[in-house]
Amino acid sequence: MSWFSWWFQMWFEGDLMAQFLKVKTADEVLSILDGIEPLPPEPVSLALACGRRLASDITAAEPAPHFARATMDGYAVRARDTFGASESLPALLERSGEVVMGEAPGLSVAPGNAVDIPTGGMIPDGADAVVMVEYTSVLDNTTIEITRPVAPGENVLKAGDDIALGETLFRRGAMLRPQDVGVLAALGILEVEVFRVPLVALISTGDEIVPVETRSLEPGKVRDINSLSLAAQIKTAGARIGVQARVPDRLDDLVSACQAALIDHDVIVLSGGSSAGVRDYTTQVLAALPESELLVHGVAIRPGKPTIFGRAGGVLFWGLPGQPVSALITCQAFVLASVRKLQGMMEPELAQTCALRAILNRQIPSVHGRTDYVPVALSQVSGGAIEASPIFGKSGAISILARADGYVVISEHVEGLDRGAEVSVFLF
Amino acid sequence: MSWFSWWFQMWFEGDLMAQFLKVKTADEVLSILDGIEPLPPEPVSLALACGRRLASDITAAEPAPHFARATMDGYAVRARDTFGASESLPALLERSGEVVMGEAPGLSVAPGNAVDIPTGGMIPDGADAVVMVEYTSVLDNTTIEITRPVAPGENVLKAGDDIALGETLFRRGAMLRPQDVGVLAALGILEVEVFRVPLVALISTGDEIVPVETRSLEPGKVRDINSLSLAAQIKTAGARIGVQARVPDRLDDLVSACQAALIDHDVIVLSGGSSAGVRDYTTQVLAALPESELLVHGVAIRPGKPTIFGRAGGVLFWGLPGQPVSALITCQAFVLASVRKLQGMMEPELAQTCALRAILNRQIPSVHGRTDYVPVALSQVSGGAIEASPIFGKSGAISILARADGYVVISEHVEGLDRGAEVSVFLF
Repeated sequence: MSWFSWWFQMWFEGDLMAQFLKVKTADEVLSILDGIEPLPPEPVSLALACGRRLASDITAAEPAPHFARATMDGYAVRARDTFGASESLPALLERSGEVVMGEAPGLSVAPGNAVDIPTGGMIPDGADAVVMVEYTSVLDNTTIEITRPVAPGENVLKAGDDIALGETLFRRGAMLRPQDVGVLAALGILEVEVFRVPLVALISTGDEIVPVETRSLEPGKVRDINSLSLAAQIKTAGARIGVQARVPDRLDDLVSACQAALIDHDVIVLSGGSSAGVRDYTTQVLAALPESELLVHGVAIRPGKPTIFGRAGGVLFWGLPGQPVSALITCQAFVLASVRKLQGMMEPELAQTCALRAILNRQIPSVHGRTDYVPVALSQVSGGAIEASPIFGKSGAISILARADGYVVISEHVEGLDRGAEVSVFLF
Repeated sequence: MSWFSWWFQMWFEGDLMAQFLKVKTADEVLSILDGIEPLPPEPVSLALACGRRLASDITAAEPAPHFARATMDGYAVRARDTFGASESLPALLERSGEVVMGEAPGLSVAPGNAVDIPTGGMIPDGADAVVMVEYTSVLDNTTIEITRPVAPGENVLKAGDDIALGETLFRRGAMLRPQDVGVLAALGILEVEVFRVPLVALISTGDEIVPVETRSLEPGKVRDINSLSLAAQIKTAGARIGVQARVPDRLDDLVSACQAALIDHDVIVLSGGSSAGVRDYTTQVLAALPESELLVHGVAIRPGKPTIFGRAGGVLFWGLPGQPVSALITCQAFVLASVRKLQGMMEPELAQTCALRAILNRQIPSVHGRTDYVPVALSQVSGGAIEASPIFGKSGAISILARADGYVVISEHVEGLDRGAEVSVFLF
């Protein structure tokens, strides 16, 4: 080997190693995920649209309401006929008819007249306000007394007052909630364009992993926990689970399984094993896939440091640690975000930042430059405050998460949290 | 009529009226809902168990792990062979073999020996600790140097350390989360007894209501919003939607529809109309059903005062206001709680109390003795604080909820909130 080729190889390998081994911070990973484009749109009927994200803005093709409605039970009147009315000097109006619910009134309100109207009833021509029934009394069959004046427009929802014609109702990327479904129903919009839901392949590997159906475990073996727990978790973010495969911890087998999954899945999540060589296998598996690109090789977090992220063509590829607690926490922290981005999440969502405030009842050590996800159990203490107890179990104990109500995130810029600190607990 | 019968009738009617018309507070309604018994249990496979609530305690029929495992990559050793080891005076051990992942080791660790072991590997006989690979160096094929001592049990998860045989894992009523599914998978528990999911009938009425498919609205008509928005909301609490019927606002029709729904539903939710007489219809409908009991007739809340709750035999019966905003808010506040109780919710759940803290940017007036649910829009202001703007729209405007990110609850004991107050915003 010439001096030059030796130098080149060292330089090349060094560069490659530096590129591959540079562990990213949690924030860096999240900003890489921010670049994920949504899947193509598809139409969905309104009855199934809740929880889906819009692929285009929606504007109102008609106003709502499309007619002026009473917002109170009472009498439709001309407001000026009530001006100056009081308990001591009531206005006297002629009760000249009735608005029937759900029908166009076949009458109009002449000066000095009042027409019975129910909440939601259509305001007749001539009237411009509704006097609440509480401020009236019936004198005889044809006369009512009004003891308070109303302003024009009072107790009336005018046409377009709720939703104006042409108004932008929802923006591309908005997730439809039950009330949004209600708004669309009000306008008769029965089908919307939403981003397609990703189909996720779950592959678990590790020579110690046996099917979850295994009744009696041989020494050294453990059941395939991740297939079930990750599937349940990924479904909470709205994705569908496709293939769930348990594959031997051999490069060829893993590559074949992933290649098969590429055909019809949008995301591949490969978890495991816990053997020392697996981390390298996972990058080798990714490298063996067509048009692949390694984007994250290790994250400065605990647990979950050996997390890997990349793409193979248009398919997202995650390599998660096999240890079930690490797998669940990295899935919660990153995989779910990527799955939401595919569904059209455009910016960080409030629901993802929703946390309980609690008082830490024990110090949590941490290291600058690393983000820690610490499971905590919550309890109500006297005075209504909520106390968070960190759960420091032995590494590898799945029961830690089952005992936890949520987790505290200690950011890379913070060196631990003191006892008594107020913390945000993300429930999970 | 004798004086006595007149007196009796007045007394009886007065009592009846008082009983019927006594509006309950929100807390009183919630404590009535607390008495709802869960539906009968049914078995469900673990893959479908996430989000369901357990009908019985679950105990561990085997320990986990069932063998002592390494929690780090390194060497299985006898801890006492490392005592006193340091950088300057390393312990020298003979490298006498290797533990293969997923297999029972066919060797034991003799004094002075060390055996290669991967994370998750089974600890061989004789060894009681694992030295992390970071604190070792390989001298030659048969000798390693150890630069830090380990304590007995260090980096080892002993049999039963995670889950002890016979340990109670989950209590009756617990809702299974993804991590809980993982724990059950670890133990090979593939089927669990959970409470049955309720089937909810949605009936909307009101002479102004037309099918949501109606293209062009006639004057006075509005589309049936509640069927779709309430269905979407009730599904978020895990229930299934059965019959969705639009029924004319006539007592006979409403009673027939409810009687039909009684046969195979667990909950009937009747919403509407907005006509003045409906509130009475709803109680009459309930009264006409077999074994019916009126438990709540009006709630001191805004919006949603005319809410009605009762039962007909084992079926829960809700009468909600027809106005879509009131219907959604009362459903959120009460119907969802009842649906969760049927599914086995045993006590108030943390997830239901999860709220964002925000600063109110405007005063909200309220009245002592009434609970107000005020929709707010959230925005991030400089410094990272979140600001909540109350949305005071005209009564009846559905777009209020679509513009809201959540709502603030002003309890009956509070007379309004000041600008600048810190409030809990429940996202919805």
